[in-house]
Amino acid sequence: MNVTSKQIAELCGVTRGTVDRALNNRPGIHPDTRDKIMRVAEELGYRPHFLAQSLVKGHTKTLGIVLFDIHNQIFSQLFHAFEAEARKRGYIVYLVLSNRDKELEMEYINNLFDRRVDGIALLPANDNKKFESFLLRSRTPIVTFGNRLFGPFPYIWINDKQAICDSVAFLADQGYRHLIYLSPPLMRKGKENIYVPEQRYQGFIEACAEIPAMRFNVIAHKQYLTELETLLETIDSKCAILCSSDVYALEVLKWLKARKIRVPDQVGLMGFDNIEFLKYINPSLTTVDYNVNEIGTKLADLLIRRINDEEVPVETLIDHHVLQGESVMSE
Amino acid sequence: MNVTSKQIAELCGVTRGTVDRALNNRPGIHPDTRDKIMRVAEELGYRPHFLAQSLVKGHTKTLGIVLFDIHNQIFSQLFHAFEAEARKRGYIVYLVLSNRDKELEMEYINNLFDRRVDGIALLPANDNKKFESFLLRSRTPIVTFGNRLFGPFPYIWINDKQAICDSVAFLADQGYRHLIYLSPPLMRKGKENIYVPEQRYQGFIEACAEIPAMRFNVIAHKQYLTELETLLETIDSKCAILCSSDVYALEVLKWLKARKIRVPDQVGLMGFDNIEFLKYINPSLTTVDYNVNEIGTKLADLLIRRINDEEVPVETLIDHHVLQGESVMSE
Repeated sequence: MNVTSKQIAELCGVTRGTVDRALNNRPGIHPDTRDKIMRVAEELGYRPHFLAQSLVKGHTKTLGIVLFDIHNQIFSQLFHAFEAEARKRGYIVYLVLSNRDKELEMEYINNLFDRRVDGIALLPANDNKKFESFLLRSRTPIVTFGNRLFGPFPYIWINDKQAICDSVAFLADQGYRHLIYLSPPLMRKGKENIYVPEQRYQGFIEACAEIPAMRFNVIAHKQYLTELETLLETIDSKCAILCSSDVYALEVLKWLKARKIRVPDQVGLMGFDNIEFLKYINPSLTTVDYNVNEIGTKLADLLIRRINDEEVPVETLIDHHVLQGESVMSE
Repeated sequence: MNVTSKQIAELCGVTRGTVDRALNNRPGIHPDTRDKIMRVAEELGYRPHFLAQSLVKGHTKTLGIVLFDIHNQIFSQLFHAFEAEARKRGYIVYLVLSNRDKELEMEYINNLFDRRVDGIALLPANDNKKFESFLLRSRTPIVTFGNRLFGPFPYIWINDKQAICDSVAFLADQGYRHLIYLSPPLMRKGKENIYVPEQRYQGFIEACAEIPAMRFNVIAHKQYLTELETLLETIDSKCAILCSSDVYALEVLKWLKARKIRVPDQVGLMGFDNIEFLKYINPSLTTVDYNVNEIGTKLADLLIRRINDEEVPVETLIDHHVLQGESVMSE
């Protein structure tokens, strides 16, 4: 397999100790001998035995990141930024996809522990005490994002509740008097970690409750289009559908077009995330914009600072704002 | 950090040898003692020392995959399938993104070698002899995809040349008499590995040359929209723009819409890849469809078979077909 320092020693006619001195840049060796050893090592493609060194040094310069999936572009964008920052700081990254499967998530995290990753960035699907003590037991630094745990794990994301409050206020300002909040992840309540979906949901309920003239519904089903169809038939005031993420808004837009329901003339539509693909969509989608690259970069930074035993804030929230597109009709 | 077998031995009041017998399911131990040890080990969250075991066993049950990026959805789809198959077979995956940077690609592959991955799935940006001997020297099994090397590395993808020939024939059948082939990656010729872009380009040239009535142009610039604008003004026969991937076709479609050039009434448009996102695009895009999930799954399978010293085909080509959408006008 790989070239060993023993082989280099044989080829150069020196002892293995001399080779080690040259490779580790230690004194007590003639410059010519050092040059020869370095040349031979390079020609042979010598690389120090990383795993063996890791056992001694206690670090592997490896991070793990656990995502649900990268079908939703917001997470592939986040990964790009995370990976770039990790690389800049000398780390390589394991990406594992839990597919929101709680068992699989634990299995994967165990795999990452086994490989002695220096730290893990975690979008958790689990949320119970047992899971948290499992994480804490390993003593591996962990930073969470996109869903929260309640143990001492730093968290980075946006203020989701406020973002939906802002969205409701924006739609009310445009004259909408009936809002349908569409968030299929809510159906997993009690089954898995839905911290962020619940924050957004609470923001919706509270913001609507503060506007006396506002009527509203919540759709939290897998068969959300069927429910939407029934619901839309009963509404006669100026109505908008507010979706918990752009991917649902795109599905709804596709369905509305197929039914020849015009956006925004007959119904308003709003998403959440401002994924890159939105630039190809007509009508352009009103959405909640936030800098996911900033989240990815800061996520890597927080994790590496935790690995280096630095203090990091328990909570880091990135700015957001409502981005107006053509899918909402101004009053 | 992690619990050791020594600690378990102390807690159970037995020797470390007895603990090892229990944990490794070897005989010579009383069933009650085994039960007690296993219970204590589980309570403490004991995990065998994976890195140390890897050094002994000579494998890490880890694969690396090198992609350019996951901005292009075809690669996030491929990764999902690759990762799912790897997991099923007991492997965990490092994903690294080369961003088409040849230096970075080599640095990353060295990093993967350092971590003793059992095998690497590689979309290569490099293409020279030096790179190939660097890969071969490590003796790590490697399977390539999406761009070809010329050493003994198995390759999986589609027949790109044939796919573009089929596209040209399809457009000719619809009455198109002027084709513009748009492939910005061609501008990197001589600078990096563009095996697939060149295959597609050759397919285009050969297929057009066989149709006497067909006129054609090739755009291989970064500023492709500027060139497209100039070109479109000069064309008066039924014209279609054939793009080397959907991501370029989406950019062109966006640009045509902004200029109020109607697709397919004034110009036809065709992409390549049939990425999932296309389902949200109007008019629906004519494209080349192939099963990228099948590629991802087979890529993992080929790599794992190579790791297990099994023979695998040098070349595995997946079926493709032209998928007709509304962006091309039938005659």
